[in-house]
Amino acid sequence: MNLVLIDETELEAGHRVVLADHRARHLREVLRVAVGDSVRVGVIDGPLGRGHIEAISHDTVALCCTWGEVPPLPRIDILLALPRPKVMGRLYASLAQLGIHRLMLSNGARVERYYFDAHQLDPRYWRSQFLEGLAQARDTRVPVVTVHKSFRVLIEDELPGLATHRFRLVSDPSARVSVREACQGALPHDRVLLAIGPEGGWNDFERDLLAAHGFDEVGMGPRTLRSDIATIALIALTSDALSSPN
Amino acid sequence: MNLVLIDETELEAGHRVVLADHRARHLREVLRVAVGDSVRVGVIDGPLGRGHIEAISHDTVALCCTWGEVPPLPRIDILLALPRPKVMGRLYASLAQLGIHRLMLSNGARVERYYFDAHQLDPRYWRSQFLEGLAQARDTRVPVVTVHKSFRVLIEDELPGLATHRFRLVSDPSARVSVREACQGALPHDRVLLAIGPEGGWNDFERDLLAAHGFDEVGMGPRTLRSDIATIALIALTSDALSSPN
Repeated sequence: MNLVLIDETELEAGHRVVLADHRARHLREVLRVAVGDSVRVGVIDGPLGRGHIEAISHDTVALCCTWGEVPPLPRIDILLALPRPKVMGRLYASLAQLGIHRLMLSNGARVERYYFDAHQLDPRYWRSQFLEGLAQARDTRVPVVTVHKSFRVLIEDELPGLATHRFRLVSDPSARVSVREACQGALPHDRVLLAIGPEGGWNDFERDLLAAHGFDEVGMGPRTLRSDIATIALIALTSDALSSPN
Repeated sequence: MNLVLIDETELEAGHRVVLADHRARHLREVLRVAVGDSVRVGVIDGPLGRGHIEAISHDTVALCCTWGEVPPLPRIDILLALPRPKVMGRLYASLAQLGIHRLMLSNGARVERYYFDAHQLDPRYWRSQFLEGLAQARDTRVPVVTVHKSFRVLIEDELPGLATHRFRLVSDPSARVSVREACQGALPHDRVLLAIGPEGGWNDFERDLLAAHGFDEVGMGPRTLRSDIATIALIALTSDALSSPN
């Protein structure tokens, strides 16, 4: 835990908090803090800051916080054909670590229907995983998840209302254009939407629908990656391309 | 499974094989092959090819294979401070998917000694994980693992004998140079060694030793990533930089 994340409702007068859960345990047992020390703190979806340890008891740690800046929203959104529940469950924390704003989980012809009933699709599940990832990466911005049971409705009707992106990219193993090439000329406020298909790939209908809605194909070479590894790799490449465009 | 991997010793006359394990089950039950079909096959650490289904029984599948080219060795090697066993266990298949040649698992001041006793450090464990990753990525080259209980001996004495790299890079959150910048001017046969530290980072001694042995610091921005996510992201960035250098 590189950052102690605090919910706004836990704060007294905006800057005092008494922790009594796993965060207190981590501060006492792993970081071994003492009164007078200070640690990195953040308000969930709010500012980062410093927390000064005021008191430590057997099971609580009291902090007095001073707040700085709110981290900027990540510039990358992900449209992901829902992978197997076990793969999805592990991916949330990685996504929060890497920094994304929106996660659109979509159905697709090659997505199994029962994936949508898994406990990994419970908002409490993904929230706890996201907070773990944010605490690792020292960010406070919780990704916003939407679940879409119709791919066609998502692309045709819902997408325009969800976000505006200068770049809409879809990952395809046969594409010859790299993420960097596709993001050429990106300006500091441009946003990117990355679409990543299911294990068996998008079918022809889905591929055509994406193309018709402005998604450009990008590739990462000839290797076929599992969708979670492809997602992590694509976010890394996109962040890199956005932070130092050609 | 995007590729049926076959051990050389299973082949009769160099091109016939009768599968009777999970590979046969996968061909029958997931891919639902019929006699006359052909599937992608590969010899472990050997050529890729096509396998023509000659016979199918209740529990076996017989193939006749024709062989093509041996995939090139990946140009990236990894020097990884051994992470927690659970994290390490999950990382093997990802590494094989992304494509690395050597994996040097090292001790470090902030690596717990008991990590080295975990079952995830059993060569049978990593081999089965590697084969799973290679079958996903359609490659035959099994990464070569070495375990190093002394970081100093690894860097000072063993490294020169293990491989030659034009670029030696060490990941550091505070570094301002990107992987792409560090790999500028890479030629088609140049190799890269990427060093990735433990959760708490390298200590000063380790950092100085790496610097003294030609490791240049590279960064991926301000986010602190867990070592498995950092490793996947760094390999993706390095592959991209090598395949289209500036």
